[in-house]
Amino acid sequence: MKNILKEVLEESKKYTEEGNVASYIPELKKANRDDVGICIIDRYNNIYTEGNYSTKFTIQSISKVIVLAMALMDNDWSYVFSKVGMEPSGDPFNSIMKLETNDTKRPNNPMINAGAIVTTSLIKGDSAEEKEARMLNFFRKLAKNDSLQINYDVYKSEKLTGDRNRAMAYLLKNDGFITGDVEEVLDLYFKQCSIEVDTVDLARIGINLASYGVDIETGERLIRKDISRMVKTFMVTCGMYDASGEFAIRTGIPAKSGVGGGIVASVPNTMGIGVYGPALDKKGNSVAGIKILEDLSNRLELNIF
Amino acid sequence: MKNILKEVLEESKKYTEEGNVASYIPELKKANRDDVGICIIDRYNNIYTEGNYSTKFTIQSISKVIVLAMALMDNDWSYVFSKVGMEPSGDPFNSIMKLETNDTKRPNNPMINAGAIVTTSLIKGDSAEEKEARMLNFFRKLAKNDSLQINYDVYKSEKLTGDRNRAMAYLLKNDGFITGDVEEVLDLYFKQCSIEVDTVDLARIGINLASYGVDIETGERLIRKDISRMVKTFMVTCGMYDASGEFAIRTGIPAKSGVGGGIVASVPNTMGIGVYGPALDKKGNSVAGIKILEDLSNRLELNIF
Amino acid sequence: MKNILKEVLEESKKYTEEGNVASYIPELKKANRDDVGICIIDRYNNIYTEGNYSTKFTIQSISKVIVLAMALMDNDWSYVFSKVGMEPSGDPFNSIMKLETNDTKRPNNPMINAGAIVTTSLIKGDSAEEKEARMLNFFRKLAKNDSLQINYDVYKSEKLTGDRNRAMAYLLKNDGFITGDVEEVLDLYFKQCSIEVDTVDLARIGINLASYGVDIETGERLIRKDISRMVKTFMVTCGMYDASGEFAIRTGIPAKSGVGGGIVASVPNTMGIGVYGPALDKKGNSVAGIKILEDLSNRLELNIF
Amino acid sequence: MKNILKEVLEESKKYTEEGNVASYIPELKKANRDDVGICIIDRYNNIYTEGNYSTKFTIQSISKVIVLAMALMDNDWSYVFSKVGMEPSGDPFNSIMKLETNDTKRPNNPMINAGAIVTTSLIKGDSAEEKEARMLNFFRKLAKNDSLQINYDVYKSEKLTGDRNRAMAYLLKNDGFITGDVEEVLDLYFKQCSIEVDTVDLARIGINLASYGVDIETGERLIRKDISRMVKTFMVTCGMYDASGEFAIRTGIPAKSGVGGGIVASVPNTMGIGVYGPALDKKGNSVAGIKILEDLSNRLELNIF
Repeated sequence: MKNILKEVLEESKKYTEEGNVASYIPELKKANRDDVGICIIDRYNNIYTEGNYSTKFTIQSISKVIVLAMALMDNDWSYVFSKVGMEPSGDPFNSIMKLETNDTKRPNNPMINAGAIVTTSLIKGDSAEEKEARMLNFFRKLAKNDSLQINYDVYKSEKLTGDRNRAMAYLLKNDGFITGDVEEVLDLYFKQCSIEVDTVDLARIGINLASYGVDIETGERLIRKDISRMVKTFMVTCGMYDASGEFAIRTGIPAKSGVGGGIVASVPNTMGIGVYGPALDKKGNSVAGIKILEDLSNRLELNIF
Repeated sequence: MKNILKEVLEESKKYTEEGNVASYIPELKKANRDDVGICIIDRYNNIYTEGNYSTKFTIQSISKVIVLAMALMDNDWSYVFSKVGMEPSGDPFNSIMKLETNDTKRPNNPMINAGAIVTTSLIKGDSAEEKEARMLNFFRKLAKNDSLQINYDVYKSEKLTGDRNRAMAYLLKNDGFITGDVEEVLDLYFKQCSIEVDTVDLARIGINLASYGVDIETGERLIRKDISRMVKTFMVTCGMYDASGEFAIRTGIPAKSGVGGGIVASVPNTMGIGVYGPALDKKGNSVAGIKILEDLSNRLELNIF
Repeated sequence: MKNILKEVLEESKKYTEEGNVASYIPELKKANRDDVGICIIDRYNNIYTEGNYSTKFTIQSISKVIVLAMALMDNDWSYVFSKVGMEPSGDPFNSIMKLETNDTKRPNNPMINAGAIVTTSLIKGDSAEEKEARMLNFFRKLAKNDSLQINYDVYKSEKLTGDRNRAMAYLLKNDGFITGDVEEVLDLYFKQCSIEVDTVDLARIGINLASYGVDIETGERLIRKDISRMVKTFMVTCGMYDASGEFAIRTGIPAKSGVGGGIVASVPNTMGIGVYGPALDKKGNSVAGIKILEDLSNRLELNIF
Repeated sequence: MKNILKEVLEESKKYTEEGNVASYIPELKKANRDDVGICIIDRYNNIYTEGNYSTKFTIQSISKVIVLAMALMDNDWSYVFSKVGMEPSGDPFNSIMKLETNDTKRPNNPMINAGAIVTTSLIKGDSAEEKEARMLNFFRKLAKNDSLQINYDVYKSEKLTGDRNRAMAYLLKNDGFITGDVEEVLDLYFKQCSIEVDTVDLARIGINLASYGVDIETGERLIRKDISRMVKTFMVTCGMYDASGEFAIRTGIPAKSGVGGGIVASVPNTMGIGVYGPALDKKGNSVAGIKILEDLSNRLELNIF
């Protein structure tokens, strides 16, 4: 396995030049375009790492997966899905248009920004502080890493430049899909995007989803089985922005990417994978990350279809 | 298993009243709204049937799956996917809009009408007759049923009322996604939709896809492994019209429906399922069929995620 | 003329039942659905009134016309039209979609909400207070009525329920079409919509535009000639929401409506007309007001085409 | 006047380099990019010409104005406008999208291709030949030129490459906005676009509309007054493709352009203007033609607003 990882990582490095580091906020621009890292945790808790596996980056849209799980734990299914849909959108992740043209005006799914703003608003707590604490705690539990922290520089930048998300949130408020204070919801949304992780954290999250929500070491149930499945389903249908379909065709692995350069992948009953490569393609997915997951899928027969 | 099928079918019958038989052409209106049938073929070639399992109906959009496989066998991947995309569309199956608003103007995927018109145009043959013969032959082979025939009454009706598909086809021609004679392409498209099958045929198609393209009786390879996977992936991301996301969440089974009332489902490495129930919901999917697949997924743990 | 007004008004009253008073804020609901009023001021300064001509109502979207004139007086043409377009949109007045699908992402024109938020942001002033004072002063001058005031109950309600406009404004900020503090721009926008007028005020505004910006009593130039023409052109192409085309066909008169029930009409070189009738059709235009302007156009040959 | 025309034409010639001759069919490419011609006919039947005023070109979209008048003469208003709308679309002339997203699915107006296909289908006649003869005759009458002919090379090219219009027509058929044989309707549509005219013909059409449908020489009524007004209204709101709003702002003159390089302008009660300049801007309007009409509007105070 170690050799495979080395080869796969080496091969993927050839592609980093084709991508660009996210630049919409200064903090993300600081990432090193050529970095590539990977961590695999299998169902027997074997951990394999390679390259810049321990480099820290912000989780960004990968948080949508975890917040969805939390919204589904905190609320009835039917309530959650009255506020956000289950369908791929066919549009870019930050599209506003569908909020107007959809019959229901609901966000299409929880993997686009508008949908994730909704799931964020569904996290329970008596105060903003409690919601943030519960959220961060859940991320730490899933990643088995109590040192996970919000990167406050990134958070502040996101907040400052987040007018497009702000526009969506006010539209969602107007149409009754979120309630309460818009800026408070956005604050929690920007915070969750700004949590710092490395590939080991992502691989751990991946294996916890792959094992249907049970911690493979302790046997503790972290997430209900049905919710762990739902989350992986959304990863396949909408996890890679508007390249989700192609990624599913090429790899057949449930995965979710973020513009920080990370991708979490979760092969049911088999393994969790965390990859990092901040050079992004035009859709916002890690160039090297996609290459690595394609190669691994082929070599290790990870395709679930 | 027999008991499970009985119960599941009985339960599903309660829902047929909520749906309506397709009515856009007179032939489809003749179906009996309360009919429900099911056939399962597992990887050991055990065959289980129940209800109206042998009632004949036209395959309609389920043909898109088979024609996609054929287009991928007849052409290079890269060529096929230069003419039709891999992404869910988030729009109804007969939407034209995306052909204009997409950057590429390509149909989003081969499971919507526009995309299936493209894949149909990619079937090889020296003449219209040869293309039709090759197509019908491939359907027969996948269904292991040499008596499959086109229902010419349905075909003629489809052709007569097919102006919306005709509009799409001319737009696709205009934008260079299909070549040759538009009416000839449409003719083959309407014919493939009009092939008559029963649930046993569908279950057989399903198990052939589930076994990665190998005939489980004879060991003959009917479809390349990678193509069988691709096809199942499209079934998950776009198989159930604009309810594909919800269906994937609820069942986790690759499936494709048609307005004739059929659904083919293919559980990788496990089983093929054919269901029939002509009462359709608003999205065009069999009401009873969806209910049956949900129940089976839960009882038999068929969810792949 | 007096008799014509009587007849026209009487006739129009039959149609008020077909409409409904705006209800998105409580204050507007208080209007009396059957009220109809009219005032005409011709180029010789003859003033004719009938019905509820002196009933007060909020000016609402009619303010867009005046704020456009002001933006064009405060800034270069080219600058204004780099921030807002000149084309009819074919979409409802509060549509957000075009801000995403337009090549330029600019609001289509200054008569839809998004465009008016832009022109509002272009009003000059060293402080929010100064901008408000300049704005109110300009309204008073054009209406020749120093007692015009903001209705603060309406303003507060607009502000409280204005999340859709807020969404637009943040999107405009994000895309660089407005600068500065979004809430400050919106505050001025909500205020201008809440100015209280009667039909005499509107008729005066109408004649001032009809006389190419010159006060017909004093000869004072209030607006540049070219700006007065531009404003009337926008009234024809986009003045009556997404019923502008039909209204132009039926009357041939430049006009602008508001959901408060008012319509200002300006027949070049001929007359200004103010009408009031709070019962609105589905597009948001005064039912009786449209009827009156159609009748007057026919009887007095006011059609400019 | 002669001097003004000379100067205006000379000035406009500077801009021809900014445009390009239409190239979607070979015949149009043959036009000389630097040609500019103009003809004015005033209400006293004075005729002024300059430059390439007698060069022949195909009328193209300008025909939409005449066919609209004919449809309104052959049918009830209410019937015509149940099949085609009265609103500007905010979209390119050959857009299909709105046929799907509009509530009514009707073409927005008769000046876009889809709308003109509808008005074409409303021309009365017992046979295709009679319809064509009636149509050509009406064009000749309005242009006072019995030698007007269809350019059959252009017609054949249009027909051959007209798949986008064909797509629209089938969609219109599908949705019930046109009836009868689609290819027959399209044939008449392609023929009307291919009628050859010069600027004198256009100026004559313009003055006939400007005089409210009465031949200024003979006093013969060619078009009903109300129809002549309606037609001019559509010219203002939708006559210059998706640059109609800007053109109205800049000139205030009802006008209709065609990709053959012609523009017909009709100043109510004042004059008809024909201009020719085959170099087109990106929206499909004659670069020199727009410049000329802007200059003339300013110099002769032709702005109707």
